[in-house]
Amino acid sequence: MNAIQEIFLKMFSRFPEEAIIQFANAFSEKKLKKGDFLLQEGQICRDLVFILNGNMMCYYLKDGKRYIDEFSLDYEFITDYTSFIYQSTTDKYIECLEDCVIYTLSYERMNALYDLPHQPFDRLGRMMAEQIYLQWHEKSKSLLMDDATERYLKLINKRPYLSQRVPQYLIAEYLGIAPESLSRIRKSLTNTKV
Amino acid sequence: MNAIQEIFLKMFSRFPEEAIIQFANAFSEKKLKKGDFLLQEGQICRDLVFILNGNMMCYYLKDGKRYIDEFSLDYEFITDYTSFIYQSTTDKYIECLEDCVIYTLSYERMNALYDLPHQPFDRLGRMMAEQIYLQWHEKSKSLLMDDATERYLKLINKRPYLSQRVPQYLIAEYLGIAPESLSRIRKSLTNTKV
Repeated sequence: MNAIQEIFLKMFSRFPEEAIIQFANAFSEKKLKKGDFLLQEGQICRDLVFILNGNMMCYYLKDGKRYIDEFSLDYEFITDYTSFIYQSTTDKYIECLEDCVIYTLSYERMNALYDLPHQPFDRLGRMMAEQIYLQWHEKSKSLLMDDATERYLKLINKRPYLSQRVPQYLIAEYLGIAPESLSRIRKSLTNTKV
Repeated sequence: MNAIQEIFLKMFSRFPEEAIIQFANAFSEKKLKKGDFLLQEGQICRDLVFILNGNMMCYYLKDGKRYIDEFSLDYEFITDYTSFIYQSTTDKYIECLEDCVIYTLSYERMNALYDLPHQPFDRLGRMMAEQIYLQWHEKSKSLLMDDATERYLKLINKRPYLSQRVPQYLIAEYLGIAPESLSRIRKSLTNTKV
């Protein structure tokens, strides 16, 4: 059993083993270098991507300003799901912050799985879509109501190692605050813990 | 054929007619009065709801402040999908701004449909989850990057009648601006059109 099969079997443990092996086998391994782009504005997102090891940053450019949308690290799926579902052009950039080993599943292969009769892939797709919705719902709620400290806590609570892997100036940019303000937030949180 | 069957057949035209009739028949009609709550913080969202006629406002309360999240009108689905999927307590309020005629599908009935063998309900659920994701992805992008004018345009472009049905002070509150600022935005947009 290879790494991706093992990970997916744990991740989708509610599904029959042979379906998950089939799902895992539909992915292809690829390697990207730090600074490479998985996706750039104007392209079509052809693949659903699972990061085995690595670190990617998603952002938009608007009127010359960059808006960082998300960081994705080991064992996370990443894609512009809108562009993927509709095979429409994206306005998103996905850039590697480290060398990455990824597994990709093309739109055509994903749909071929969906179309297999009497298989649980539509259910798997439903549950993945529900999970992705959930992330964006939480994100949208946070953007609506939370201040920078709360957004910082939400960012690192889920992935405490993130602040060791993503440069502080990018985390500050994600939060829409100056790097000095992020230092103050981190200091006040450390003091609170003591 | 009743109203809800006809609407769903148009809405889900890619699916077999008899499956959609079965889906529509799983819904129950209910009536709510202006000021009634479909959902309040601490409750569990038991139903997926389709609004036949009506107007509802979703919001959160945090530290005594209200954050309006969305307005939903005729022919739209509304739910706290997170609370619905996980049958967990919600932190959302959904309040009727007008008398409403709604169709509800309970969590149990939805799952009974998903579990029917060789039926397209998982695919239907996947496509609904993808649509809901899409809305929240757009919303989150807009909260990240757009100013009040752009958010106003996105709100009314999709539903031009919304500004006739939702009081201006609530639209201003949704945008996080003073009612006078909304008047200025509307005036400048009218002038631009001329």
